[in-house]
Formats: sequence, C-alpha cells, structure tokens
Amino acid sequence: MATERLVIVGGDATGMAAASQARRLRKPDELAITAFERGHYTSYSACGIPYWVGGEVDGPDALIARTAQEHRARDIDLRLRREVTELDLDRGRVLTRELDDGGRESWTGFDKLVLATGARPRRPDLPGIDAPGVHGVQTLDDGRALLDTLDASPGRRAVVVGAGYIGVEMAEALIRRGYEVTVLEQSAQPMSTLDPDMGALVHEAMCAMGIETVRGATVTGVLTGEGSAPGGGRARAVTTKDAEYPADVVVLGLGVRPETTLAAAAGLPLGASGGLLTDLAMRVRGHDHIWAGGDCVEVRDLVSGQLRHVALGTHANKHGQVIGANVGGGYATFPGVVGTAVSKVCDLEIARTGLLEREARAAGLRFVTVTVEATNRAGYYPGARPMHVKMLAERRTGRLLGVQIVGREGAGKRVDVAAVALTAGMTVEQMTALDLGYAPPFSPVWDPVLVAARKATAAVRDAGA
Amino acid sequence: MATERLVIVGGDATGMAAASQARRLRKPDELAITAFERGHYTSYSACGIPYWVGGEVDGPDALIARTAQEHRARDIDLRLRREVTELDLDRGRVLTRELDDGGRESWTGFDKLVLATGARPRRPDLPGIDAPGVHGVQTLDDGRALLDTLDASPGRRAVVVGAGYIGVEMAEALIRRGYEVTVLEQSAQPMSTLDPDMGALVHEAMCAMGIETVRGATVTGVLTGEGSAPGGGRARAVTTKDAEYPADVVVLGLGVRPETTLAAAAGLPLGASGGLLTDLAMRVRGHDHIWAGGDCVEVRDLVSGQLRHVALGTHANKHGQVIGANVGGGYATFPGVVGTAVSKVCDLEIARTGLLEREARAAGLRFVTVTVEATNRAGYYPGARPMHVKMLAERRTGRLLGVQIVGREGAGKRVDVAAVALTAGMTVEQMTALDLGYAPPFSPVWDPVLVAARKATAAVRDAGA
Repeated sequence: MATERLVIVGGDATGMAAASQARRLRKPDELAITAFERGHYTSYSACGIPYWVGGEVDGPDALIARTAQEHRARDIDLRLRREVTELDLDRGRVLTRELDDGGRESWTGFDKLVLATGARPRRPDLPGIDAPGVHGVQTLDDGRALLDTLDASPGRRAVVVGAGYIGVEMAEALIRRGYEVTVLEQSAQPMSTLDPDMGALVHEAMCAMGIETVRGATVTGVLTGEGSAPGGGRARAVTTKDAEYPADVVVLGLGVRPETTLAAAAGLPLGASGGLLTDLAMRVRGHDHIWAGGDCVEVRDLVSGQLRHVALGTHANKHGQVIGANVGGGYATFPGVVGTAVSKVCDLEIARTGLLEREARAAGLRFVTVTVEATNRAGYYPGARPMHVKMLAERRTGRLLGVQIVGREGAGKRVDVAAVALTAGMTVEQMTALDLGYAPPFSPVWDPVLVAARKATAAVRDAGA
Repeated sequence: MATERLVIVGGDATGMAAASQARRLRKPDELAITAFERGHYTSYSACGIPYWVGGEVDGPDALIARTAQEHRARDIDLRLRREVTELDLDRGRVLTRELDDGGRESWTGFDKLVLATGARPRRPDLPGIDAPGVHGVQTLDDGRALLDTLDASPGRRAVVVGAGYIGVEMAEALIRRGYEVTVLEQSAQPMSTLDPDMGALVHEAMCAMGIETVRGATVTGVLTGEGSAPGGGRARAVTTKDAEYPADVVVLGLGVRPETTLAAAAGLPLGASGGLLTDLAMRVRGHDHIWAGGDCVEVRDLVSGQLRHVALGTHANKHGQVIGANVGGGYATFPGVVGTAVSKVCDLEIARTGLLEREARAAGLRFVTVTVEATNRAGYYPGARPMHVKMLAERRTGRLLGVQIVGREGAGKRVDVAAVALTAGMTVEQMTALDLGYAPPFSPVWDPVLVAARKATAAVRDAGA
C-alpha cells in the first residue's frame, strides 16, 4: 500500500494534536505527516502569554507543550517559519514560502489536509495602530515582542484596548509589572461576554484594584511621538472621542476572528463569522479529505442550536484529537460547545456558560433570570467571600440556559456544574437536587449554584406560561 | 378550618428547614408548628465543629444558622432541652421529657409528624470508652465538651480513632492546636470511603504532614489513669491488639448510624442500615402523615439503585426543604444521591462521588478503572500541584460509575463535574467532550477529569464485551 500523505497547515494546538494522534494510529510507512507553521514555535499555550508577560511564568519555553524536536522525533515532518500561501485543492497540493530563507516557494502534495490556521487578532483600521509600542498578544512571537517593548520602555503607563478575557488578563499582567493601567472598553461594561449587570460587578472590582476602566470608550487612534524610525515614532497615547490617554505601551485585546484567508480563496465553506464549516467529525463540509479545527472553525452551540466562533485552547486541543483519530482511521466526534469560559483579573474570578440574555433572545428563547449572592465557602469558614451567580432558565420548560459567575477564589470553576447540566439538558428544578460536594472549606451547605437553581425554579413557576 | 398541628422531632438541619419552609407556605392559624430538640442548640452546622475545635472558627454562635429566638419570632414553637421519648402513632401524640426541669413528662398531639432525629456516633463497647477525655464530635454540645477537655488538659498528645471524614478533619484540628496526633484506623488505608489505592495517597500525605497514621489498628480499649472521679480516672492511652498509644485526649471518629430508636419502637419501617424508609416526597413508607429526613433515613443511590445511609448536612437541608414544601401543601421530591463527599486534611483535598470498586461489585456491576495523575492548574502556572483522579466506568455501556480525587487546592470540588454527569447518566466518552472552564490559573487545557474520561473511554473499548 502506498504511503498516504497528510499535510497540516498550522503547527499549534489543533494541528499538532491532530498530527500526534494520527501518528499514534498510523505508522510512518502508512502515513507521512508534514506540518507547516509560519511562526517560530509550535504546540504552545497562547493562553499562557499574559502570565509570561506578568512575570508569573518563565517563557516562552514553559509554554511549549511539545517542541519541534519532540514532534520530529515522532516522525512528524514539522517545518517552522514556512507559510502556506495557497491551497490547490484540484491538484491536491499546497504552496509554501520560506519566511527566513529568501522567500523560496514550493509545492507539497497531499492526500489528506488539515487546516489549523487559527485566528488573527482584531486590529481596527485606525491612525497609528501599527506604530511601534502597539502590541497584540496572540502568538508567542507577539509575547516576545511585547516583552522587548516593556524591557526597553522607560515609562510606566499602559493602555489596554478592550476589556474582554485578553484585556483583563493583560491588565493584571501589567499591574504586576508595576504599570499604571488604563483599560478602554467600547461597551457599557467590561467583559461583554457577560450580561451588563454582571459586567458591572467586574468593573467595580477592577476599579477597586486600581485599574482605571473606562466604559463606552470608542478608540479613535494612537498618537505617536517624534521619532527617527521611518513612518513616525512610537505610540505615546491612545485617543478616544472624548479624551487622550497617555501610554508608554498599548496592548490590543479586542478579540480575534477566524484566520481563513487561504480557505476562502480556495472556495471552502465559511459561516457568518468567517469560520470554516465542518461536520461532527471536523471534516470540512463537502470535502471528504479535508479537516479543520481550532480557532479557524465555527462550532455548534448546543444550547441555542446556532453556529458560533469560539477561540479557546481547550476546544482547539479537542478538535485536534478528533481530527487525528479520524485521519488515522479511528472514529471520534466533537458534538459542540455550551459556551463555557473562565478568567480572572487579580483575585476576581469571572465565568460563564450557556447563553447570555442577548444570546437567548437572539435564539428566539423566552426565559427568566435570577441572580443570587452567596459565599464560596461556608459563611463562617475563614476566607469565605461573596460570589454572584446569575442563572437563565427557559420559561415553561425550566431548562437551564446559562450561568454567569463573578466572585473570588473557588467561584470560577463552579461554572463547570452548569456546563455539565447544560450538556445534559437539565432543568433548573432537576439541578436543585444535584449531589454536589459539601464541606465547610469548600461550600456552604447549599452550593451557590444550587441556591441560584432554587430561585430560578421559583421564577419559572411564577412566570407561568 | 381547624388549625393543623405539626410536630417535629429534632431541631437541627432537617427539622428546622422543614419548619421554616412549612411556615413560609402556611400561616400560624392554618398550621401550628412545634419542634422538640433535646440539645441546647438548633439549626447548626455540625460539619463546622472540627474548624471550631481547630480554632479557625469562633463557636458555637458562628455555627448556628438560625437561633431559637429567630425561629420563635417566625411562629415556630421550638422547645430546647426537651426530649421525645415515645411516639404514639395510634393516638397521634408524642411523649416528651424536660431535660433541665426535673424530667417532667407530657404528651403533645399532632396531625402531621416530622422525624428528624439525626444520627448517633458509633461508640464501640470497649473498656474505658466512656472515660472522661474520650469525645465524640457529633453535636455542638460534644464540641463544647471536647474544647473544655482541651483547655483543661496539660498534655499535648491526641489519639483519633478512625480515619474517615471526621477523623481526618479532627486530626487537622488537633494539629492546629499544637497536639501530636496519632490516627488509628482499622482498615488497610485511611479514608475507607475511597478505594485502598486512593486511600494510600491520603496515608502518604498525612504522614508527610506529621500525622502518625496507623493502619490495620484494631482498638481494644482505653486505659485510664488514677483518679478521684467515680468509676475511674481520665483516659491516658488507647490500646490496640499490638500497641499502646498515650493520649491526653481521645477523639472518636468512627462514623455514625441512624438514630431511629423511637421510630423502631413505634414500628416504623427501617432499612438494612437502621435508617427510616421513605418515598420520594420523604414520607415514611405506609404512613401518610409522617415524614422523615436527614441523618435518620436511608436514601436511594442513583448509581447502584440500592438504598444507603449517608449522613451529610447538605442532604439533611434538602430533605428539610422537601418535607416543608410537602407538609405545607406544596410539592417537592428528593430523587436520591450519587454519593458525593469532599473533605480536606490540611492542604490535601479528598473527594468521591458514585461507587467505589467494592460498591460497584456489590451492586452486580462489571467495570473498568483508570487512574490518572494531572495538575490542578496549567502545569506552568504558579501553584500547579499534582492531583490524582480515579474513574470507574461500566463495561460495554461505558456509563460513568464513580470518581475519586486526591489532590491539593482546587482538586476536591472538581468531583462536582462527575456528580452531575452521574446524575445525567453520561458515558465516559460523552464526558470527553464536556465544555469545562479552561484558563491556565484554573485548569490544564485538558481538565484532569477529562483526562481520566479519555483514559476510561479507551479502557472500556479495550475491555470489549
């Protein structure tokens, strides 16, 4: 039997997990695996970058789960700094360009193709946005560039644009490095991945931490100083419609969009967010020999039934695993997500799963909401701290639709209980009987999630039909 | 309409939660509520006693969720230090005795009766077991008596008999008070609520904390010193078949059994463990006007389908809520438990849910087991510590049967994910796709529970039919 040729575009979580899993199932004489990565690093935790920048983690090596050498030792032909510039699906080949070697181009043929091209940060088209001193934090290369700026910068003022997950994590990182941090957020509240009432709790806590958090701030540009570099000098301030915020460094935390330029050019099917569309086995729709996963695809939201784009390392790894199993002749599927996310800024833990109010409305659902304040541990136990749990339940059926949590230590991961309940399609009344772990150092006798479920059960009943 | 009379026997979690919930639904002129409690306290967290003894919590007031005065202010006629000594079901009345007032006896009539008599600690019939200096820790009165002994004792050596939840929590409490602690456990490993291989991890950790933990130790008696008190002096050592362990104080942590003496005398139906048998509404089987809940009943194990006795404050509170709703004319049920429990000894977190190996075998199940070692956080994140997850899955179906966890901070409450999955009847393969919260401070990119689920999925497949 001829050796099959598998080509992987993108050498981070999805691509290399797929490569590793496929290699476990198929020997090199059965399946030749070639992976192209345009960056310097592979199989790394981009989610760890804020902690590297904040000095909590030594980087970049600690963030690399498996090095290029380790992959190569397992008979995976991994090419770093080699960018794929074209997919020729008709002839089953990809065009690549050497980034460090004079731009030499060549074609590589494939029998099976995995697209793991990830996402690219949103970077609004504003004056000065590309000036030195303005940084994204999407890749290890980005992290290294930001650290170089911080090390070289004499100043101590940082502006973070965007108060989503990356924004708040970078705010914490810069606070740790001794910066005065201002976070500019266009929405009415930080963390627009939460409902505004829960985002307001985050705003309050961030202010108490000394992080200036400006809401409703529409960034209009980046001012640069006098400089000798061609095209102008370094960033020195961020401007909004109303004000000017001095900045020795600017970090963009505006989220990401799927990186599917290649896929689009090749005519592969994309969804509303620009992400690739796949089946449950992560095979690109209509293409038997092409798989895609990670930050470049759309996934099914199991609560709303809609497709959405969720860029998250844990999904990317699962996708890689599923793709590798299927490419390798096994069988696995990725049924979808329920929209779980957890983050922290200093000691504040922020979590969500399922649908926000606006998402539930957009899905055509009618629902009730409740919010409870409880404590992470028994109220009398040392370290007991307040935590807020918001819960959405469908009217009439009482089906759980979503949970949001803002609290301190031990609050965030409680969202997992709701994530499993969502996956199982439980009602909030069923949840009230859940047998969750109880002991005073871990929980009040009624876990905060159960308190919310009880209140939501009553709200469903009161709301009637 | 005549006022109905509700009598409650036992004024702790179940009894007073039932009283409060019933009062919410029915006014005093509809329902008169009388509750009898033989102790000095009501509605308290017995689970908090080890932390009170350890000095982490001010007691006993902090452990009392609602005082007698607060209950009385809500038109609940609560009588403390009044012991119910007989149930006369034919005539619908209970006999009570004043404990502080010369033992005066009287009858009180009821239309509806709630039995919330709790549990009593196991106290083996051994020489010296009732000597001064030997303490149980079941009630606030017990806690107060132990603290009096500790305050009066000049010595610094403590022996804890039994290495279950209470035993390990009391070991921590006594270590905190500066005692040299020896824990004597009859089983091959501490925490016989875990499988022996997981118990061995607890043993290892306890030894590293300086807690001498003797396994396979059959206690034969308590030696007492010379003393002036009638019947002999204070405890001075605990003896086993093989050795003698000096002790200035002895704490019994041998678990509890249902306190159903009254119910048995009245001919109410009891299960194999001695607990009362109820229906899903917590009504005593065959008795329309009698409810029972908390530590004195047996509950349905939703995984094995068997009845079992589980003494735990969180169930007791849920039972009280359900009973109060039904007594008050509403509707609620308690479907059962999956056997979740969590505890800690110093910084070691110990949790379980579902079935142990021996329990699964006793239920007639065939299963596979896997154990994984992972970390509570991303491996590179500060404070990442190893944690062990053991998982049992049914052969052929792959249904999750149980999870045990031993680890450090953030490990224990992860058992909740498995508790919900058990309730939902998930397979381990379904669990591999769970959308659990991920960020480096909270979890590796594969949550340890998911790592175990992946390994269990493979084990189910490999085991075949």
